[in-house]
Amino acid sequence: MLWISITKTTHPGQLPPADKLGFGSVFTDHMFLMDYTDKTGWHDARIVPFGPLSLSPAANVFHYAAEVFEGLKAYRRADGGVQLFRPWENMKRLNASAQRMGLPLIPESDALQAVKTLVSIDKSWAPSAPGTSLYIRPFLFSTDPTLSLHGVHKAVFAVILSPSGSYYANGFKPVRIMLEIDDVRAVRGGTGYTKCGGNYAASNRADGRAMAQGFDQVLWLDGVERRYIEEVGAMNVMFKINGTVVTPALTGSILPGITRRSCIEMLRSWGVSVEERLLSVQELVQAAASGTLEEAFGTGTAAVISPIGELNFKGEGYTVNQGVIGPTAQRLYDELTGLQWGARPDPFGWVCPIEG
Amino acid sequence: MLWISITKTTHPGQLPPADKLGFGSVFTDHMFLMDYTDKTGWHDARIVPFGPLSLSPAANVFHYAAEVFEGLKAYRRADGGVQLFRPWENMKRLNASAQRMGLPLIPESDALQAVKTLVSIDKSWAPSAPGTSLYIRPFLFSTDPTLSLHGVHKAVFAVILSPSGSYYANGFKPVRIMLEIDDVRAVRGGTGYTKCGGNYAASNRADGRAMAQGFDQVLWLDGVERRYIEEVGAMNVMFKINGTVVTPALTGSILPGITRRSCIEMLRSWGVSVEERLLSVQELVQAAASGTLEEAFGTGTAAVISPIGELNFKGEGYTVNQGVIGPTAQRLYDELTGLQWGARPDPFGWVCPIEG
Repeated sequence: MLWISITKTTHPGQLPPADKLGFGSVFTDHMFLMDYTDKTGWHDARIVPFGPLSLSPAANVFHYAAEVFEGLKAYRRADGGVQLFRPWENMKRLNASAQRMGLPLIPESDALQAVKTLVSIDKSWAPSAPGTSLYIRPFLFSTDPTLSLHGVHKAVFAVILSPSGSYYANGFKPVRIMLEIDDVRAVRGGTGYTKCGGNYAASNRADGRAMAQGFDQVLWLDGVERRYIEEVGAMNVMFKINGTVVTPALTGSILPGITRRSCIEMLRSWGVSVEERLLSVQELVQAAASGTLEEAFGTGTAAVISPIGELNFKGEGYTVNQGVIGPTAQRLYDELTGLQWGARPDPFGWVCPIEG
Repeated sequence: MLWISITKTTHPGQLPPADKLGFGSVFTDHMFLMDYTDKTGWHDARIVPFGPLSLSPAANVFHYAAEVFEGLKAYRRADGGVQLFRPWENMKRLNASAQRMGLPLIPESDALQAVKTLVSIDKSWAPSAPGTSLYIRPFLFSTDPTLSLHGVHKAVFAVILSPSGSYYANGFKPVRIMLEIDDVRAVRGGTGYTKCGGNYAASNRADGRAMAQGFDQVLWLDGVERRYIEEVGAMNVMFKINGTVVTPALTGSILPGITRRSCIEMLRSWGVSVEERLLSVQELVQAAASGTLEEAFGTGTAAVISPIGELNFKGEGYTVNQGVIGPTAQRLYDELTGLQWGARPDPFGWVCPIEG
């Protein structure tokens, strides 16, 4: 059990109206911080008023990016209660990311307690309009104030909360996706399976190029053969081909998404066949051209399910399911969000209520 | 010409004795800062007292690692003057890195002026003992205070200075290198050719493992075939095989080192044959086993030349040149450091004196 000191703000803010929230730019009254040194281990767990972090300009995080994060949400139920969705999976993945980057691990129960305590204190910031949620961002980074490259001796674990608008405020509009053929996001043996900053920095340029050409996201290929589908934007991706849902296998360069895993488990519980395997862009193009590609969608915490209406491969466009959301994507979205917002019973044991 | 406002410290510090400097942990009295917004561009160039940076906990740099840096040195000449070594190459590479990460570019002359002005103000911090220098760290990172992933709208360019001890304070001791076979540092199409934080974060774990086994650095293989030599630790690497210096070609996953380039140009000016090409670990092992591997050394700003005394491939050790520095490495070190510290004439035009 982690002992957390709590200092409440003397200037509480107010939750903006749901249509002004957007994503990740409004923050709640408080944040969680905890310090690490290799001599003392983790110490000084505290909840304090949300405010700037003050760091040496030599801090590792500015130069060598020893930084990992997680993303999950607190959902407001109709009865006014607030709940999380499989948060222990995020805490496990946080440590898997930290291990890869040489950052100190955090006992998973401590990290979860930090999240739950902070959400409980700032519970009034969890919005209640349909599709809105309180986005939770735990992050862990090295603060060693030296430019030398010898491991991590100091670190900070922080949690901030951001009330966020509905991802589908303007309706459930399928996205247009462009195959990325120049830039590579991640490679086996690298950091692709972690939520480390470097993966996102590496994706930035291609995302910008795709958007400039009128697409919403890029479709990433593997870095070795430049042949196998990996992810879409910052989401996992699934394709329904001839009645079977196919999703790229976790080869080490792909994020082991919690929404991905929940979709696979849910689909299988319905008797839908799911294959986790290598899927080449050639196979996908052929399926799209021959009409056996029935659905395509991204999966992730932010969107839950993001239907793909168009795939563009080297200038050639393929419409998927007439550009509208398909039945599998729709059912996954309905049942997952039903669980997350508490509108449906939870036969899987995925929901985690916040007390108090 | 950049207009730089200057606020001098009222509490100047003092340069510690040379044997207490180490690397990258002592900083001078001042730092350079400049802000960017996509509406205003670069603005508010200023030199201020060295001190902590205060940033929103949501700042991009803590989460998505949109961050790049450079490393160069100011050298104290025997006549008391201070000079830089090919600094315009660093400013070019800074922009090449920024371009890959979707960060705003900086006019190279402005970045160089920032460095020169700051060094000029903190010139008394450039140590004079043999092998010591004033390490210069320009860095550029995104400060967008939002968790959304839509490009970079705010950034900071900073320069800090760190008086640093001699890399070879304990003598010119060749290092022991271990081949890394699990982790990959970078892949073609990725960010390997940039000085971005993510590359260093990705290397952290393997460095730690190698050191725990008594090695000094790891030898990185390419991420595609896991067959070709790329870099050693955070340095470029060169091998003298049968009279020819062989160094990995710049395939996109290798840092285009300025010391690397200077070595190649210097070697060719002496009539030594240099090949920039793919070099497989098999070829290297064979050369080591058959005795045609005459020398091996890393090249980089910190060490200049770092002779390799032992290569370890999957538990098999190969001693290089009886574990002592070879004549090519020694001559490169002598002539490069001779230029850098101003002890020798500069036929290449590489040196850049600091005025004032």
